[in-house]
Amino acid sequence: MSSFATLLVSCPDRKGLVASLAQVLYGHGANIVDADQHTDAVAGQFFQRIHFDMSDIHTDRTSLESAIREVAARFEMAFRLTRSDAVKRVGIFVSKYDHCLYDLLLRQRSGELDCEIPLIISNHEDLRPVAEQFGVRFEHLPVTKATKAQQEQEALRLLRAEGVGLAVLARYMQILSDDFLRAFEGDVINIHHSFLPAFVGGKPYHRAYERGVKLIGATAHFATADLDEGPIIEQDVVRCSHRDKVDDLVRKGRDLEKVVLARAVRLHLADRVLVYGNKTVVFD
Amino acid sequence: MSSFATLLVSCPDRKGLVASLAQVLYGHGANIVDADQHTDAVAGQFFQRIHFDMSDIHTDRTSLESAIREVAARFEMAFRLTRSDAVKRVGIFVSKYDHCLYDLLLRQRSGELDCEIPLIISNHEDLRPVAEQFGVRFEHLPVTKATKAQQEQEALRLLRAEGVGLAVLARYMQILSDDFLRAFEGDVINIHHSFLPAFVGGKPYHRAYERGVKLIGATAHFATADLDEGPIIEQDVVRCSHRDKVDDLVRKGRDLEKVVLARAVRLHLADRVLVYGNKTVVFD
Amino acid sequence: MSSFATLLVSCPDRKGLVASLAQVLYGHGANIVDADQHTDAVAGQFFQRIHFDMSDIHTDRTSLESAIREVAARFEMAFRLTRSDAVKRVGIFVSKYDHCLYDLLLRQRSGELDCEIPLIISNHEDLRPVAEQFGVRFEHLPVTKATKAQQEQEALRLLRAEGVGLAVLARYMQILSDDFLRAFEGDVINIHHSFLPAFVGGKPYHRAYERGVKLIGATAHFATADLDEGPIIEQDVVRCSHRDKVDDLVRKGRDLEKVVLARAVRLHLADRVLVYGNKTVVFD
Amino acid sequence: MSSFATLLVSCPDRKGLVASLAQVLYGHGANIVDADQHTDAVAGQFFQRIHFDMSDIHTDRTSLESAIREVAARFEMAFRLTRSDAVKRVGIFVSKYDHCLYDLLLRQRSGELDCEIPLIISNHEDLRPVAEQFGVRFEHLPVTKATKAQQEQEALRLLRAEGVGLAVLARYMQILSDDFLRAFEGDVINIHHSFLPAFVGGKPYHRAYERGVKLIGATAHFATADLDEGPIIEQDVVRCSHRDKVDDLVRKGRDLEKVVLARAVRLHLADRVLVYGNKTVVFD
Repeated sequence: MSSFATLLVSCPDRKGLVASLAQVLYGHGANIVDADQHTDAVAGQFFQRIHFDMSDIHTDRTSLESAIREVAARFEMAFRLTRSDAVKRVGIFVSKYDHCLYDLLLRQRSGELDCEIPLIISNHEDLRPVAEQFGVRFEHLPVTKATKAQQEQEALRLLRAEGVGLAVLARYMQILSDDFLRAFEGDVINIHHSFLPAFVGGKPYHRAYERGVKLIGATAHFATADLDEGPIIEQDVVRCSHRDKVDDLVRKGRDLEKVVLARAVRLHLADRVLVYGNKTVVFD
Repeated sequence: MSSFATLLVSCPDRKGLVASLAQVLYGHGANIVDADQHTDAVAGQFFQRIHFDMSDIHTDRTSLESAIREVAARFEMAFRLTRSDAVKRVGIFVSKYDHCLYDLLLRQRSGELDCEIPLIISNHEDLRPVAEQFGVRFEHLPVTKATKAQQEQEALRLLRAEGVGLAVLARYMQILSDDFLRAFEGDVINIHHSFLPAFVGGKPYHRAYERGVKLIGATAHFATADLDEGPIIEQDVVRCSHRDKVDDLVRKGRDLEKVVLARAVRLHLADRVLVYGNKTVVFD
Repeated sequence: MSSFATLLVSCPDRKGLVASLAQVLYGHGANIVDADQHTDAVAGQFFQRIHFDMSDIHTDRTSLESAIREVAARFEMAFRLTRSDAVKRVGIFVSKYDHCLYDLLLRQRSGELDCEIPLIISNHEDLRPVAEQFGVRFEHLPVTKATKAQQEQEALRLLRAEGVGLAVLARYMQILSDDFLRAFEGDVINIHHSFLPAFVGGKPYHRAYERGVKLIGATAHFATADLDEGPIIEQDVVRCSHRDKVDDLVRKGRDLEKVVLARAVRLHLADRVLVYGNKTVVFD
Repeated sequence: MSSFATLLVSCPDRKGLVASLAQVLYGHGANIVDADQHTDAVAGQFFQRIHFDMSDIHTDRTSLESAIREVAARFEMAFRLTRSDAVKRVGIFVSKYDHCLYDLLLRQRSGELDCEIPLIISNHEDLRPVAEQFGVRFEHLPVTKATKAQQEQEALRLLRAEGVGLAVLARYMQILSDDFLRAFEGDVINIHHSFLPAFVGGKPYHRAYERGVKLIGATAHFATADLDEGPIIEQDVVRCSHRDKVDDLVRKGRDLEKVVLARAVRLHLADRVLVYGNKTVVFD
């Protein structure tokens, strides 16, 4: 029986990092299937992703894992070890736009996104039928200024109850508070409908139209307290022209938003994304 | 003998514009080879580019031109009529980077840019040998804060003396003053090494690196008094990753800068670019 | 009340074409909103698309249309005149892949595709639930070698009964016979999962993998009797690498197929596509 | 003093490969700066690129190299070890087109291509002035059917005399014989002006025009005896339309050819390209 795992590591750069990790895995009989590494010389930081096969290890997983922990401690590594058979659980926040929601649900169902989607949270009722089509729990949590803190508490409770490790803001038209982001144990990925840092903030398609740009973009990034300033995971653009009205930009942008968000979610689910400072290392 | 001309028109939108212009040309025996039109419904503005063949006209060019002028007056059209045999003259401003300069000179020589390049102006001596290779006059006009106004006067004088109708800032590291831009009778195209409006201002590659973007861009725009705010003619991007250091962004960006600037210059030389407000209509 | 129409024209090139059409429309009080034209000098062929507003015409539509017909006859024009209020009806052929089907249905529902979709025909039962979700008639017409001719007759009957003017092969894994294509009064658009003419025929992703290409593509084209040889409407590509297995190419390709097919259908519905010989003129 | 080297390895896949190489380098005090690896599960083949710093090794380079050789022998590795201070020497073959030649020479001069270019061979005299501008030896070796074998012998002699390890066919309009390719000790990279395998063979722009494609491409590949069938290193495309005549495709294609060829040469010079079967692994 084949059984894979992925190790994501970051630490201050120094000699022997690659050798030590490779040695531990080899010593236990694990086989490295794929490895990628990066050293940021400016930041003096080392990053590595190792995907390995544990099906022939001649010890057991617990001792392999504790051996990895030991090396990590020795080199002051931050690390994340994920077993491929531990399926990740994703929660989706939406408002009224359905294109990203449909896209994520269809990709999950087709096997393209290796995860379960047990929960959809929305501040509107509109997309409940979509959730029902796919048999996903839908929770309507309306938001007003007065109830925002309370609504976020309820969202947190639901995410935890469903064991969600990744929340995806699929054109969710509310800003999550700093408190929420600090409290939530998992990651939060947002899709912004511009080529950040151009058009930070609201109504980017309108502003792109006014500025007369010849390309519009979309950006998937980790949500942080600083709006639209979180670490960028993926971006893409599409050509436009003087013929495109705001509506056309919105339409063209929808395709971008879907694809860029799906790529980011997929990369994250495959443990290919590491954050440092306000940047990401993406091992694709 | 075949003899072509291009008519570029903009005016408030109203009925009969297309018919009137087509009728005038047909009435004189000119043959429309290519026509493109655009109406900006929001701005209520009409734009048209007509490329036509005058080789079989049964009047003469002067009467055709005065007939066009008449229609233009009737509809309050701003227009520009260019004969294909009137070769345009382009002046290039450079500092020390040679990649855009070489690119423009080679494209001109290969026939890709339909123009003459009689003049290169630089605030440094460094690129004189390149100018000499291509047999182009090179004028070294150093700039200091104290001499800037005077240097620009001298530049103006040279441009006029050489009959330059289009000045291209090919990574010229000086900002042309509002006075210069107002005084110069022709157009000025600049290449900015970012995907505007992201990274307006200086050191865009450094700032792209710091922000951790996954695409970098270049923007060709008309130079205006508001730095980096002029009407955008052309933009493009290229993918980058965490592996790219600032130097790599600079290297990747050079290819973009060359291509984007050359496309903008080529479009302008073919009378395909119309400005309105802070935007362009590009009939490509 | 505003009422638009689109006129698509092709004919041998000669003088006065643009003026004559513009004059007819102007003479009846129609206002040209958008016009695009192309002359293929090699083929000596003229093409034009005119989108105009009939809301203020001072005759009636019948006399406007007969005036257009007259001009068309004089210049031997092939033309198609479509009123914007005459909604087009699209039929979709599918087999088992659902991504293009979902994509078209969602785009239609969101208003992005200006048409009705009254009919889905499949040689398998699998996608009936998708059709039901969207309330579209689903007809299961299985095919064997023996029954193929008969199945196509039944398909023709259904298309005609539903008034379908455009059939879209959304990854339909059967080849429509020459007889069917000749008999069907409308157009047929197919999506091929390669960058034609590379990998004409079956299993293009497998062959792309074997050849070791660095980009894969998708092509939307009109279906003709010569398999994969019909006029190309739209193409696009996406980058791949040695890391991509056939499955990855299939996954990446799905996004391309959806987007490329949707663009082609959208262009066709907006009367922006003209066929001549084995090529298309696409006024986008 | 810092001193880098790059190790490129390929061998049948088995356990312990990564660990063994990492251990050898670490054991000698070398520091792995960058490592990338790939396993082709279908072919059962392992590939790795390790870029390391030897400035602090506590043995000497000879013993490090013999230790690497030992590991390589144990695992039946094909490997190439390149010291960063050993500058590579590139020879360029051209005919009459100058755009790729200029591009390579300018990139080399700007430091973008880490190599020397001591030799340009051409079957025509036309580009001698370009070579002279850059101070590069230019050898005119005309070819006729009768003299082809002899001309290739002379080319081989020149390449060897100049210590050329990489020959670049920069739109060289002759086919190198199988004999030449077998005899030459280095690699040969060619640029083909289409998106291979579309339009294999001659006149690809003409054929792209005739087929009415909506994208044209360029492909850099290793030259092999089977024309246009060699392992692909890099490809890219650019959009075209019905408006583009063959001349326009040629013009647009020139930019692609330059960029695609330069990328392939740069990747190869950085020891990032491995060939297996008819494919490449490109560690970019």
